[in-house]
This record gives sequence, C-alpha cells and structure tokens, in this order.
Amino acid sequence: MTLWGGRFEKKINPDAWQLNSSLEVDHRLAEEDVRGSLAWAKALRDAKVLDENDYKQISTGLLQIQKEFEEGSFEFLENDEDIHSAVERRLGQLIGSSAGKLHSGRSRNDQVATDFRLWAIRAIDQLVNLFRELQVVFVDRAESDFGVILPGYTHTQRAQPILLSHWWLAHFWAFQRDIERLQETLQRTSVLPLGSGAVAGTTFPIDRAELAKELGFEKVAPNSIDAVADRDFVAEVLFCVALAGVHLSRLSEAVILFSSTEFGFFTLDDTFSTGSSLMPQKKNPDLFELGRGKSGKLIGLLCGFMTTLKGLPSAYDKDLQEDKAALFNAYDTIRTLLPALKGALQTLHLNPERMSAALDDSLFATDLADYLVERGVPFRHAHELVGQAVRIAEKEGIHLSKVPFQQYRELDEHFEEDLYQVFNPWRSIERRNAFGGTAPEAVREQLRLARQICSLTE
Amino acid sequence: MTLWGGRFEKKINPDAWQLNSSLEVDHRLAEEDVRGSLAWAKALRDAKVLDENDYKQISTGLLQIQKEFEEGSFEFLENDEDIHSAVERRLGQLIGSSAGKLHSGRSRNDQVATDFRLWAIRAIDQLVNLFRELQVVFVDRAESDFGVILPGYTHTQRAQPILLSHWWLAHFWAFQRDIERLQETLQRTSVLPLGSGAVAGTTFPIDRAELAKELGFEKVAPNSIDAVADRDFVAEVLFCVALAGVHLSRLSEAVILFSSTEFGFFTLDDTFSTGSSLMPQKKNPDLFELGRGKSGKLIGLLCGFMTTLKGLPSAYDKDLQEDKAALFNAYDTIRTLLPALKGALQTLHLNPERMSAALDDSLFATDLADYLVERGVPFRHAHELVGQAVRIAEKEGIHLSKVPFQQYRELDEHFEEDLYQVFNPWRSIERRNAFGGTAPEAVREQLRLARQICSLTE
Amino acid sequence: MTLWGGRFEKKINPDAWQLNSSLEVDHRLAEEDVRGSLAWAKALRDAKVLDENDYKQISTGLLQIQKEFEEGSFEFLENDEDIHSAVERRLGQLIGSSAGKLHSGRSRNDQVATDFRLWAIRAIDQLVNLFRELQVVFVDRAESDFGVILPGYTHTQRAQPILLSHWWLAHFWAFQRDIERLQETLQRTSVLPLGSGAVAGTTFPIDRAELAKELGFEKVAPNSIDAVADRDFVAEVLFCVALAGVHLSRLSEAVILFSSTEFGFFTLDDTFSTGSSLMPQKKNPDLFELGRGKSGKLIGLLCGFMTTLKGLPSAYDKDLQEDKAALFNAYDTIRTLLPALKGALQTLHLNPERMSAALDDSLFATDLADYLVERGVPFRHAHELVGQAVRIAEKEGIHLSKVPFQQYRELDEHFEEDLYQVFNPWRSIERRNAFGGTAPEAVREQLRLARQICSLTE
Amino acid sequence: MTLWGGRFEKKINPDAWQLNSSLEVDHRLAEEDVRGSLAWAKALRDAKVLDENDYKQISTGLLQIQKEFEEGSFEFLENDEDIHSAVERRLGQLIGSSAGKLHSGRSRNDQVATDFRLWAIRAIDQLVNLFRELQVVFVDRAESDFGVILPGYTHTQRAQPILLSHWWLAHFWAFQRDIERLQETLQRTSVLPLGSGAVAGTTFPIDRAELAKELGFEKVAPNSIDAVADRDFVAEVLFCVALAGVHLSRLSEAVILFSSTEFGFFTLDDTFSTGSSLMPQKKNPDLFELGRGKSGKLIGLLCGFMTTLKGLPSAYDKDLQEDKAALFNAYDTIRTLLPALKGALQTLHLNPERMSAALDDSLFATDLADYLVERGVPFRHAHELVGQAVRIAEKEGIHLSKVPFQQYRELDEHFEEDLYQVFNPWRSIERRNAFGGTAPEAVREQLRLARQICSLTE
Repeated sequence: MTLWGGRFEKKINPDAWQLNSSLEVDHRLAEEDVRGSLAWAKALRDAKVLDENDYKQISTGLLQIQKEFEEGSFEFLENDEDIHSAVERRLGQLIGSSAGKLHSGRSRNDQVATDFRLWAIRAIDQLVNLFRELQVVFVDRAESDFGVILPGYTHTQRAQPILLSHWWLAHFWAFQRDIERLQETLQRTSVLPLGSGAVAGTTFPIDRAELAKELGFEKVAPNSIDAVADRDFVAEVLFCVALAGVHLSRLSEAVILFSSTEFGFFTLDDTFSTGSSLMPQKKNPDLFELGRGKSGKLIGLLCGFMTTLKGLPSAYDKDLQEDKAALFNAYDTIRTLLPALKGALQTLHLNPERMSAALDDSLFATDLADYLVERGVPFRHAHELVGQAVRIAEKEGIHLSKVPFQQYRELDEHFEEDLYQVFNPWRSIERRNAFGGTAPEAVREQLRLARQICSLTE
Repeated sequence: MTLWGGRFEKKINPDAWQLNSSLEVDHRLAEEDVRGSLAWAKALRDAKVLDENDYKQISTGLLQIQKEFEEGSFEFLENDEDIHSAVERRLGQLIGSSAGKLHSGRSRNDQVATDFRLWAIRAIDQLVNLFRELQVVFVDRAESDFGVILPGYTHTQRAQPILLSHWWLAHFWAFQRDIERLQETLQRTSVLPLGSGAVAGTTFPIDRAELAKELGFEKVAPNSIDAVADRDFVAEVLFCVALAGVHLSRLSEAVILFSSTEFGFFTLDDTFSTGSSLMPQKKNPDLFELGRGKSGKLIGLLCGFMTTLKGLPSAYDKDLQEDKAALFNAYDTIRTLLPALKGALQTLHLNPERMSAALDDSLFATDLADYLVERGVPFRHAHELVGQAVRIAEKEGIHLSKVPFQQYRELDEHFEEDLYQVFNPWRSIERRNAFGGTAPEAVREQLRLARQICSLTE
Repeated sequence: MTLWGGRFEKKINPDAWQLNSSLEVDHRLAEEDVRGSLAWAKALRDAKVLDENDYKQISTGLLQIQKEFEEGSFEFLENDEDIHSAVERRLGQLIGSSAGKLHSGRSRNDQVATDFRLWAIRAIDQLVNLFRELQVVFVDRAESDFGVILPGYTHTQRAQPILLSHWWLAHFWAFQRDIERLQETLQRTSVLPLGSGAVAGTTFPIDRAELAKELGFEKVAPNSIDAVADRDFVAEVLFCVALAGVHLSRLSEAVILFSSTEFGFFTLDDTFSTGSSLMPQKKNPDLFELGRGKSGKLIGLLCGFMTTLKGLPSAYDKDLQEDKAALFNAYDTIRTLLPALKGALQTLHLNPERMSAALDDSLFATDLADYLVERGVPFRHAHELVGQAVRIAEKEGIHLSKVPFQQYRELDEHFEEDLYQVFNPWRSIERRNAFGGTAPEAVREQLRLARQICSLTE
Repeated sequence: MTLWGGRFEKKINPDAWQLNSSLEVDHRLAEEDVRGSLAWAKALRDAKVLDENDYKQISTGLLQIQKEFEEGSFEFLENDEDIHSAVERRLGQLIGSSAGKLHSGRSRNDQVATDFRLWAIRAIDQLVNLFRELQVVFVDRAESDFGVILPGYTHTQRAQPILLSHWWLAHFWAFQRDIERLQETLQRTSVLPLGSGAVAGTTFPIDRAELAKELGFEKVAPNSIDAVADRDFVAEVLFCVALAGVHLSRLSEAVILFSSTEFGFFTLDDTFSTGSSLMPQKKNPDLFELGRGKSGKLIGLLCGFMTTLKGLPSAYDKDLQEDKAALFNAYDTIRTLLPALKGALQTLHLNPERMSAALDDSLFATDLADYLVERGVPFRHAHELVGQAVRIAEKEGIHLSKVPFQQYRELDEHFEEDLYQVFNPWRSIERRNAFGGTAPEAVREQLRLARQICSLTE
C-alpha cells in the first residue's frame, strides 16, 4: 500500500518500487512508529480533531499492532512501502475507515523523524551502557593487576617504566570522553519533530509541549522546516561511535602487539582467540583484529552519511532516507564488538616476567639525566651527556648500568657512585608522582576518580 | 565446526563466536568456494597429493554441494564459522574422512582471496553491463530528442543554448570512463592467489598456471605474501563504483532541477515517481533523490575500507574480512539503482516549450561579443561592451534584443543593424561546430562515436 | 638545531630532515609555545627545580622572544626542526646555558599537546563568534523580510506556502547546534597535558593544578599516557566544523537555486557576485558555490585525520603530528568563508513578486484535504479525493481553484462553495500556528527565542 | 584585474574577493597557462581569428612572460584574481590592446581544465618515477639480503619461515599495481578540453585535433559540457596516490614493528632516525611513522574531493576550483615522503641473528602436518594431531622439537623418527617452491620478473 496514490494514473514500476521501498531497513522502527502514532492520536483527540470514539478505536488498534510486533505475529505484505504504511494498512484492516483519520495534520516527514529520534535515544542509552561496561573492565584490571610494571612506549619504542594499571586507565579516560560526547548528543536528539507536518507546520491546534512529554522528548523543535530536515543527531552519533571505534582500534592494536611472541606480555585465553585452518600452532588475536578493522567501517559510515547530507538543499529530501541504514549498521557493529572485546580483556593472561625482562637499562636514561639536573646540570646538557653514555654502552655492547663509573666520571664530574641507583623500575615509577603520573600513589588517586565516575553515572 | 580447534583446550566464548563468525556475509561466496575447491582438488590430484579415488570422492561430493546451493537445499548449521567451514563440514558428511584431504597445502588465506576474486570478476562484468545499458538510454534519448534546444547552464545560471542531445551525451562520456576503469581493474582482479598457502607458498608441487587456467584467471600472483594480503582490487572496484555514483548523483541533481516546477523542462512519468503522504498534489523525484543520496554511501564505503586497509602491517590480518560486506553493499546499491534510474530516464516526458521559453536574450551575449570580434574588436573589449549593453537592458527592464540600435551604436561603432540576427538559438548552436561542440553536425558525429562504442564492446 | 642529538653518531639526511621538520606548519604555535614555556618555568621555580635567578633569566628571555614574535622580528634558522626547537635555540642565544634548564621534566610530547590545545581553545572561541555573527544575519533578515511569502519546498518540489522569515530561521537553528557542539568540545579541549612528560609523568614535584590555572585550562589531564596521545579534541573540532560546513552547503545550495533565473527569488548584489570571462551577461553565485564546494574538503579533513588516528597503537606516535595541518586548514576555511557569505546574505535582494507568483494553487492541496477533514472526512480519504481533483485539473490544464464546483461536488458531497477560500496563502500560513509552524505569530515567538539566544551568549 | 567586470555597477567586496581569488593556489599553473595560451594563439591564427601581426605580438609577449616565470621575475599584483587573469593582465602591459584578442572563443572553464590537465600529466609521470625508484630499492635489497631468513607473520603472529628477499618483493608488487593504475589514468587525463568554450563549444573554426597535438594531448574531449565539468582525472590520481599511501602505511607499520626492541630485526641508520627531546636513549622511526600517518591525509583528500564533486549538478560549477589544492597537496606529500623513505630503506641495518632466533619450533607445525599428509593422513586430521602436539609442548613448557618421540607416536602411528627433520628453516623454505612461494628458486624467478619490469618501463 502507498499513502499517496490519489493523483497518479499509473502504478509505480517494479524496479522503481524496489529502489523506493524502505521497509527492509525501517521495519526496525516498528515499535517507535506505534508509540509515535499512539501519542499523535491522543494529541488529535485533545485538539478535537478525533472524537472520543475514533480515538478509542485507533488506540485499541494500535495497541493490538504493538502486541503483534512484540509477539512477532505482525505480517508484512509485499506492497508495504515502509513501516509507516504497513502500520496504517494494518490499522485499517483492524478498525476500518477511522484508521484513515490518524494521519490528519501529520506527514511522513515529521513522523519518520520522530520515530527515528525515539530509536536513537534508546540506542544512545545502550551505547553508553556498553562503553560503561568496558570502562569497568579497565578499572577491574587496573585494580587486580596493580604492581605489575612494563615499559611505556612512544613511537613503538620503549620509553619509561609504567604501571600496567596506569596503562589500563589510559584507555578508561578515552572511553570516558566517548560517553560524555554521547550524553551531550542526547540533548540534540531528544527534540520532538512531530507537529511540523511536511515542512510548514501542522494546521491543527496540537499542543506540542504535551506531545513531547507524552513521548519523553526533552524539547520541541522550534522550526518546522528545520525539524523535518535536521539529521545532525545521526551525524553526531555516527561521529561518537566512529571516534570510539578509533579508541577500540588503538587499544586493539596495542593488545595485538603485546600478544605477539616478540612482546609476549599478554596471552589470550583460548575462549577468546582462534586458530588457523592451515597452521596448527597458531593462536590468533582475531577479535582484536576485528576491533581494529571494523573501526575503519565506522569512519566510512560517518563520512558517507555526511557526504549525503552535504549534497542537499535545505528542507526535506528523500536522500535523508539513507540515515537509518548508516546508524543501524554503526550501532550493530558496536553491539557485536563490545561484549566480545570485553570478555577478551577480562580473561587476558599476563606474563609479568616478560614485561619485567623488557625493562632494560635504556628506560632509565631520563632518570639518569634527571639525576644530573638535580645536581645542577642544565637539562639540555644532561640530556646530551646521557646520550653519550648511551652511545658508549651501545658501542661496547653493554648495558647502561654496566658502563664503569670511571667513564661516567669522564663524561661529567657531577656523576657520583650513587648514579647506579637510578636503574631501578620502582624508583623510577615512584618518582613520577605528580597528578596523572605513573607513581602508585598517583595511580591510586586516578583509580579512585575512575571508580567514582562509574558509580556516579550508573 | 571450526577448522582449527586442535591446539585449544577450551571452546570459544559465544560473544567471541558471534563477532568472529562471518557466515552471514560470506555465504554469498558459496558457489565460488565450491568452484575453487573443485579446481584445488584437481590440482592436488595432478600433484599426486590426492590419489584418483580420493579425488573422485571429493569432486563428486563437491558437485553434490554445488547442486544443493543451486537448489537452495544446502543447510547451514549454527556452528558453521564461515562458508569454507560449512562446505568442508558438509563434504565430510557426504564422503567421510577423505574430505579432510581437500585442505592439504591450502589455507583459508589463499582460499578466501580466490573465492572473492572469482566473485569480483563476475561482479565487474555485471557492473559494466549495467552501465552499458544506461549508456544506451543516453544514446537513444539523444537520437529521439534531436532538435530540442535548451539553455546550457554553468554555475546553475543560464549560459548558452545547447541541444538536449548534447546534454544527454555529456552523461554518456562520464559513464564511458567508469566502464573503462572497471575494465582495467579486471586485469588486477583476475590474478590467482590459490597456491600461496597461508603466507609462504604451498609445499606441494602445484602447477599454479594450470590452476589459473582451470579457474579462468588471467595471471598467477607472483608473491605469496602479497597474494594473501592484497585487497587492491576491492578498493579499485569500490572507487570505480563511487565515482560512477558521483556521476549518477550529478545526473540526478540535474534531473531533479529540470523536473522542478520552476524549470519545468522534464516531467517524470507516473510509473517512476512518488507522491506525498500528506500533500495530495506532490509528484516527487524520489528515485533521483535516492540516486543522489546513495552515492554518498558509496564514497563512505570506499573511504571506510581504505581506512581499514591502511591500518594494517603487511601480510594477512583478520581485518581484511571487512572487504566483503563493503563490496557486496556497493554492488547491491548499483544493482538496485540502475534499473530504476534507467527506466525513469527512458520514460521522462519533455516540455520543449518550457525549454524554449528559457532561451532568453542574455544567452546570446557571447554571440554578440563574437559579432564584435569578427568585426575586429579585441575580445576583451567586446566583452566589456556587451557587459555594458546587458547593464542598460537590465536597468531599463528590457531584453537585450530590444535595446535600440542607437544605444548599441553609442557603445561602439562596430555595431551594425544586423546585430539583431545573433538573437537566434539555431544560429547560436550551429556556429559551435568544432569537434565536441553543440552544433547539430558535431553532435551527430558524437552520436556516431557513442553508438560505435556501445556496439563495439557489447 | 635538534633537541635530541646526543646518542647519534651521524647527522640526519637532508631528505629525512625535509620530511621530519614541521616548522612550516607549527610556527603558528609560536605565541602558545612561549606562553606554555613561561608557565612551565614558573612551575619549575615553584617546584624548586629552577632557582630564582635562572627563572628570571628564562622568563626575561621568553618575554623578549614573545616580543620578537609580535613584532615579526623573530628569525627562524634553516635548521630549526620545529617551533619548540626554534624557541629554545633562541633562548640559548639570548641567555646562554641556563636556557638548557627550561626543558627539565618536560617532553615535546606534553609540550606540543599543550601548545596546540591553547591554540584550539582560542580557535573554538573565534569559530563560535563567526557562527554567531552569521546567526545575527538570519535574525536580522527574518525581521526585515517579515511578511514575504514563498513556497516551502520538499524534494525540490513546491509543497506549502511559508514565510521567508521562517525559512531564514530554519538556518538559524542549524548553526545554533553547531555552536552548542563547539562549546561542549571546549570542556574536553581545556585539559592540561603539561606535566605528563613523555608518557609516564614528570619526575619533579610540579603543581599541575596551579599550572592549569596559570594557563587558563579548566582541568588537568588525569593520565599521562592518555594526555600525550589524546587528539580527540582535534577530531571533535574537525567534526563540528565539517557539520557546520554541511549546513553552509545546504544553505548555499538553496541560495544558488533561489538565485537562478528560473526561481528568481533572490538577486545577488554586485558586490558579492562575479561574472564570466567569456559570457558578458553572467552573474554567478561563486561565493555560495565555494561555500558548497569547500564543505567537501572539510569532511575530507575530518575523515583523513580520523583515519590517521585510527592507525595507531595507544600512546604517542609521530603520526599525531598530522593534527595541526588538518585543524589549521579547517579553521582557515571557515575564517575565509564566513565573512564573505555573511555579507552576501546581508546584501541579497528579494524579488517578492516572483515568490508570490510561485504560489500556485497546488500548494493549497493539503489545505483542501484539511478542509474535508474538518467536515468529517477521514484524512486518508480526503487525501485521495484531493489527489483526484489534482488529476482533473492537470488533465484539463487548469488550476485547482478553477475546477468547477460541480466537479468537486461529484468527487465528494462534503465540498461546499466555500472550498475556494482555501486558495489563499495568508489563510494557509496563519493556520499553521502550532509552536514551530510558519504562522506569523509562531514565527514571532521563534524570532524572540532566537534573539534571546544571540544576546544571551554574546 | 578581473576578466568579467563589464556588467557590474559596483566593485566586489573585499571579503568576497578574499574568498573568490584563487591565485594563492593556482599560481602553480603559471607555466601551463602560458603553454596553453601559446597554443591557443596559434590555433586562433590558423582559424584566421588572429592575423599574423597580432599573433606575433601575442606569442612574443607570452614567451616573455614564460621567461619571467622561469626567472622568478614575474610580479603578481594584489588584484590579480587568478593565474589566468595575471597572465592576461601582464600580456596587456607588454603588448597593449591586442592582448585582448587572446581570449576569443575561449573561456576560463576550458582554459583552466586544460592547464590543470597539462600539470597532471607531468605530475603522473613524476609520481611513476618516484614509485619506480622505490621499487628499485626493493629489488636491490632483495638481492643483497638474499639468504636471510625470518618468520613470515599473519595476524602479527609468527606463521612460517620466509626469505627476507621474498618479503621485500611483496612490497615491490604492491607498488607495481600503483604504477599501473597511474599509467592507465594517463589516458583519461591526456584529453584536450580547450575549444569547449564555457559549455557549448567554441564559435571559431578551431582545429582541435591540431591543438591537441601542439599541446601533447592524446585525445580531444568529445563533448564540451563534459569537457568543462569532468574532474574524474583528479579523483583518479587522488585514488592512485591514496592507495599507494595505504601501501606505504602497511610497509611503514611493518618496519616500525621490525625496528622495535622486541622484534629487533631492523636497526634504523642514524641518518634516517630521530631522537627524543626528553629521553636520551630514544631512536625513533619518525619517518616511517610519518609515512604511516600521512597516508590518512591522502585518503581524506580523496574522500573530500569526491564529496565536493558529488554535490554538483552536471556542467561547470565554481566548486570545481577545489580540485587544485587537493591534488597539489597529495602530490607534494608523496614528493616529500618518497625520497626520505627510500633512503631509510636503503640504509636499514639487518640483525639476521635476531631473525634467526625468532624461528621457533612452532613455525614448523605446518611442515609437521604436511609430513603426516605425505604419509597418508588426511590433512584435517593431521592438523588436529599437530595441534595436540603443540598443546603438549605448551603444557610442558618445551619446544615442539623436544617433545619425545614416544609422545608423538602415541598421538599417531604415522610419526617416524625422521619427523624431527622438519624443524629446519631451510628445509621448510625450500619446499615452498611453487611459483610465488618463498623457496630460493621461486624467489629468484620473482626477482628476475621484477628486474625486467623495472628496466622495461624505465
């Protein structure tokens, strides 16, 4: 059934129908469409457009349809153009001609925008929960792995010793920003378009503030043209998800590296890794590779939808229909990724002895320079001197801590015998005690903040 | 069934399975997977890895599976990890333990690359056909609409008169480039990965040239590492399709404009347009809006997949699995768009009187400048003089052809009474007779070339 | 000068230098680098790492450098690697070896992140101002153009009459969302990285809260690893700007259409339009075409930078250096676009009679259906009946208001003679009086809200 | 100077000028603009539009301008709108009013398209050379490093032993595809637009075939509308470069990994690496990180430009002006990256003992399974058996080659004492001797092909 046949002499061509029909995608809005229609019927009754009898019939019919969706017994017909047509068609079957009164003063333009915003509000909520659950994993690991030391890396080169807990929490904060962004997006999503008609507003005296309340929207769209054309909320959620995808990718990349034989810091649990069809020995970090790979798609979904949006004049155009496939795809991707990655992180096995072995002397070069700074050597000069020591060590193929005192002394007279005390990971870590540093005390403070955030918002 | 369980003590977690399983997407490679396996079995026999008996059993089993796919009777099981596992599992059910010999010397890495290339080769062929059919529409319209004149636009402003046939053919050439690109892509797609193993090559004495011939590949991949990691062909096809999408979008945008009440050049046929659920008078160019809108997605698919590719080290990583969903999506989009747009263009009604009415005098301003140039006035000065005439006409609210001769003469003495002859669309068009111009003769020549291309390559 | 030569035996190769040097881009951070260093020097003094004398020398030197930047007298040398090296090099020239004490406990990793955030905070502020100024143009035009009616469009087809003021305000709200997003981004930008060292935190007892206050940051980054690796704020600003670009593009597209001869609603002022080098009559909306075109680039900048970010493991990698060119480019684009578009909109000439002439009878079809609804006809049936009337009018080539009463009556008995009153734009507009509708009263309310927003935040 | 002032009463506003002027970007087309104009002058003379005298003046003037560009003495004026205006303005200064005759029958629309295609043809050539030089590095390294063995990786996990030469050549083939694509693009770039006028063709009897020959174009654009609107060649080159960027990124990522302390396969030469401003020991692979990072931008440039293109109707629109900044940016990026990466690869130091040490027993698991296959065990079962052996080895913390024969025999009776011979890298490599495999003979064949390609095309 189409809702617009009146002025047309001929029926739509099958290829055109195939392209035009959106039911395959928008059937996911079934529940929201019924909710929106129930509220609209009520608003029409309050505006005296529907009498009590029509209203009762319509709402009873809609509740029946809602039940059919819940039970999975709703039957779509081949010529249902979209979810809105399907619902109105079914309503007609159930209650007869008063079904035709429901669409008074409403257009699919404001209807679909309303349905989709209702869906997005729930989706945002669920995304926030998923990321929150991931954050809890970081907090839990930071607690349970407290005391484990590994090299911190920059440029994929060993830099300075850090606490593994500090590393877990680094990821906590990235997802915290994702959650904040999603939550802020909510206020621009929770805006009621219904009552905007096709573009110019509705002709019936609808109380839109009441309608918004009924449907749980926080605000009412202040301009009907903008209300039917605005898909910023879709772009925003896509962006939030794509940036969260970037964080998942960076995390995944790190886990993949740390799980390689060469690093050997992590061992994936059997239940969260896969093998090779050819090579019997392989244990592959497939889940993290998918976490890394799928975030490319998330960026593509954002970019593709913004490109579609950009190509429009103001007001409603059919191109906007692309909004749903994009957002559903992004949402489903996160819904599949997060539980698997969460489990994989929770069950990750540590090899602290490998991490410990990776703390070679070069990681204390900054500490050695700081040693000189504390004895009055300008940092830039200290950096130069330690650089020379590194060179000596490399040339002679020995560790920095094995360069004889004599040679240190030749480099600079500020070196004393106690210089060798710097080659100690705990000492190095404990000295980085300013807020945000890797010292145990600072990390405990961080952990306290993180725990607070999780419980505050839950 | 997984193909790699041996070294694992515990079973994979359900969330991990959900993320890792790719059957939902890659079941579309069913036919190719069987074809590839049939050829591989033959190659193994030729290499004496399979004896004649095993080979017969395996090939009979595979043919049976092929039949099941064709008839739609193949049953997937919940724990089939991907299409390759499903086929090997079924083969085992059909022929027992010799099924386990098929995967000798092969890895899913080279197997999936082979399957997907086989699929892509066919897809490219079908895409070329679809675009070719669209070109034929342009040629047909250019012929049937010959003689109709409308303004050519630049900056969405009327510029100079053109033949509508010239306008149709402008689109012909854009899609010609798309076809050429797709055809060139073929040579980099039609390269056999099979026999590359997981990464280092196969250990059995496989004749890969023969294998390529058997499967219809033009070349054999010369490096096993590259062979399992190379997805350039996917990016290339995505690019070709995205750029074709840009052409569809530009065409659609033009049709949408020309079908507006304000332009009024085109009227969409009822069978290829849709109405409004609220506004009874509306006749909307939905199909062209979808043509325009969906090309945004195509750019997103390209960009997303390249982003995924970019995030990898060399050699095979699981992220590559994202290749299929992207290409399938792009392919399906074109497959749905093209037939509908083709039909809509074929049935488009013209309003030649509206086009004709749009040929106002200002469109001949260049001709007027050329008039002066032919009489010895340097073009830059002629341009300036005609600009002043335009200003006079605008100020007095009259057409350029109604500015009295006296005033022209005051502007420059090279104006003669015959200047008014320039205000003639046919004269204007006929003068643009250099190759590629809009003069009827030049357009006929163009049409001849276009027709040649269509039949040459068909 | 490099800041890291100590351990290297040989000098860097010229091609490598060429690629590695970032001064060409990051010299724009000169002012921020000095500000950051001044604050760092103070923090080092407070932490007793610098004595009072060193501090005085360093801060005097830095102030001198600041002056040189302001006066444009600072001389960069060919072997300055980046802005940080240039400043430290110059400081050494000015004050000698104590300059070498400034970098104690600091890394370029936290330094550049701090400089760039300082820059971004200012940039966000300026972007908000630019968009606010554009909003004021919409408010002003909505006021001065009050009473002008034109068709509202959907699908680029005439839909229903609207007030031009309503149309202007539709754009107001889009940019309001852009401003809100930018402002929210600020809280994630105004976070101090300094004191995070290279990755593990600083070894000196720096009071980072005090340091944040000194530099005007609202928060202190809680994790040193995240602090040096986080470029979310760059992606966020790029997203905000790209989505604002989408709004500029949609607005521009609409202005281009409305300025075409066919629509003829707007005439661009000579001072904000351009001509053709060949066609003397042309008056082109180049500025709006650039507004439309450049928003493509803005999406590309977002997508490109997110792609770069996605390709990293956690912690600092040199790839992050790409952040600056991207954000500078996006910022400069808006800085060039906005003033020109603002002026072009302010000086736009209206052709109300063309708008009025475009209000053909078909625009009242919804009103005619509503007429029936008010007389008890279910909307869906009313829609069908009016659709038939449209068909009759089209067939007979007459306006909907010219279809004889007899024929209306044959369609449905609810039609009365007063039906012809619906063909009145003011009546149509006034009836859309629910909040957000196009009725004068509703638009005045909207305008009040808009004005409030502009002054509230200014 | 503008070339279009005639019809305008007022001068353009400064903000509008700022946005509209493109000289800052398109001045790079100076040489091409003069070349194009020289050829156009000749064509006008041949068409009798210019007499011999005018032609001589114009060509002498243009040659003088060419010289000024070469010498760097050409002076741009503040009010030069673009490179075309600047050249025509200067020509007027040099030869007076006959300069005004040059633009006869030409538009900036076909002029700029011609200039830019001339530039792109040269750029493609230079890009091909740059990638060819990189290929030569791979060939050279493959030769000089012959015999070095390292693990081949899949999923960043050790898979099977390979020759380092094989790994180098894997990259050779990726760039070979890039070169092929660039070369194919040439045929769609080398198409002459000149003679298409603004949109409808030129009115003068220009011999466009001759003109194409004069300028070195292979074809003449067959449709004037398409000729001024077609920027496919820009998108194509951007795509080729972005995909080459993906290859650079994957290569860079691999080099970064292999240069980490944990892998330790490569050591960067001092002349192609950098240090840390804080950590004296650091030696960072900055160049490869930039190779990886900048390829994100390249994808963004492609995506951004395609988005701009997509947003247009057919024919010329000012948005197309964005083409140049995008392509220049992409081209410059490759020009800076390639020489540095080339040098870094040439000077890379190998640590064959680290590679050798990484060839642990697990890498021979496939060989062990093949061992069983050769003794008649179906591969799938052999895979399972070896998987169990791996599990045993892991559990007992011993190498696969140290699992006692007794235990192997318990697993399967096909194991014989000679099974231990499989734990030998050379044996493993030599067995992968099918075309494209890692066996020395196969790699030598590959090397021969690669060398052939380099010399054939050079």
